[in-house]
Amino acid sequence: MTGLTQHHSTLEVVLVHWPVVNKHGDIIGSAVTNLDIHDIARACKTFGVHRYWIVTPFDEQQKLVGEITRHWTSGYGAKANPDRQNALELVHVRTSIDEVVDEMQGYYGVNPQTIVTCASPQANMLGYDEVKKNITEDRPVLLMFGTAWGLAPEMMHKADATLPPIRGEGEFNHLSVRSAVSIILDRLLGKY
Amino acid sequence: MTGLTQHHSTLEVVLVHWPVVNKHGDIIGSAVTNLDIHDIARACKTFGVHRYWIVTPFDEQQKLVGEITRHWTSGYGAKANPDRQNALELVHVRTSIDEVVDEMQGYYGVNPQTIVTCASPQANMLGYDEVKKNITEDRPVLLMFGTAWGLAPEMMHKADATLPPIRGEGEFNHLSVRSAVSIILDRLLGKY
Repeated sequence: MTGLTQHHSTLEVVLVHWPVVNKHGDIIGSAVTNLDIHDIARACKTFGVHRYWIVTPFDEQQKLVGEITRHWTSGYGAKANPDRQNALELVHVRTSIDEVVDEMQGYYGVNPQTIVTCASPQANMLGYDEVKKNITEDRPVLLMFGTAWGLAPEMMHKADATLPPIRGEGEFNHLSVRSAVSIILDRLLGKY
Repeated sequence: MTGLTQHHSTLEVVLVHWPVVNKHGDIIGSAVTNLDIHDIARACKTFGVHRYWIVTPFDEQQKLVGEITRHWTSGYGAKANPDRQNALELVHVRTSIDEVVDEMQGYYGVNPQTIVTCASPQANMLGYDEVKKNITEDRPVLLMFGTAWGLAPEMMHKADATLPPIRGEGEFNHLSVRSAVSIILDRLLGKY
């Protein structure tokens, strides 16, 4: 394990825009949205996440993410709002989840544990405390989040583990991905 | 205390657009943003929050919120996405925080405890467990969140209590209001 400092954990986050499903369950590629970049980068920075990966195979979308992040990391935004600069420096764009996993493998020397969330119970369910333990022990963990109506089933099945759904009173469970990421990071890395 | 059912708690949330401060600390009124309505309504619904109040004194802004919520609660959106309908039904627009407090007083028969969050320690600090206890005992609690650079100091000082800041590793604490609301609701009402 190389290059680790005390400033971040071995937890990394990926926001996936392909392959995801639409409301009919069809596999689609979704569009990157500006606020997914900002809100999730700010949450990642707050909780000491090492890197925030954005996966899209579409050239134009990759360019868009690059333009937005550069505005805040080296353009006018960096001067106007240094806090935002610090957050958006965590953003890295890649073409596929496999690419992210390979880079993490190269960086940490072992494959990351890949973790998804799901609204219904899965065979490979893992509790928040167990994932927390892995992070405390500096094992690389990749938290995967889908946009649109969620990650494609093949990605869900390939993941090493599934976190229990976020629930309050009742059965309603339709959080935005921005809210879901924030809550899960707080559960895994929050201090209070 | 009247009209309570098991489907929601005595916790209510208000998102304040006036009086708030800009980056220089001047008192301003901020513009309502679409995603603040949606993301926070979905989080409120997930965690069984009774009502989600949006405070703005500006007529045009009040109309805008009305148009957005009606699209989802009784317009085309209600048919297209019933989950979103359920969430946006929690939204109520009012002109001032005082109006919200008065309505809660009328509904519950006692004044709500008003709670803010702050990045620095305050004299009236209250832990998450204590607020949780109040909610468990069905005491009305109003969680107040500011947009822009946060609630005006006068509102901070008038609040009954202040929750500790949300922190991970390090000093960075610049979450979006959408992330902050989601995390605090999970800490107070989440089940896991």
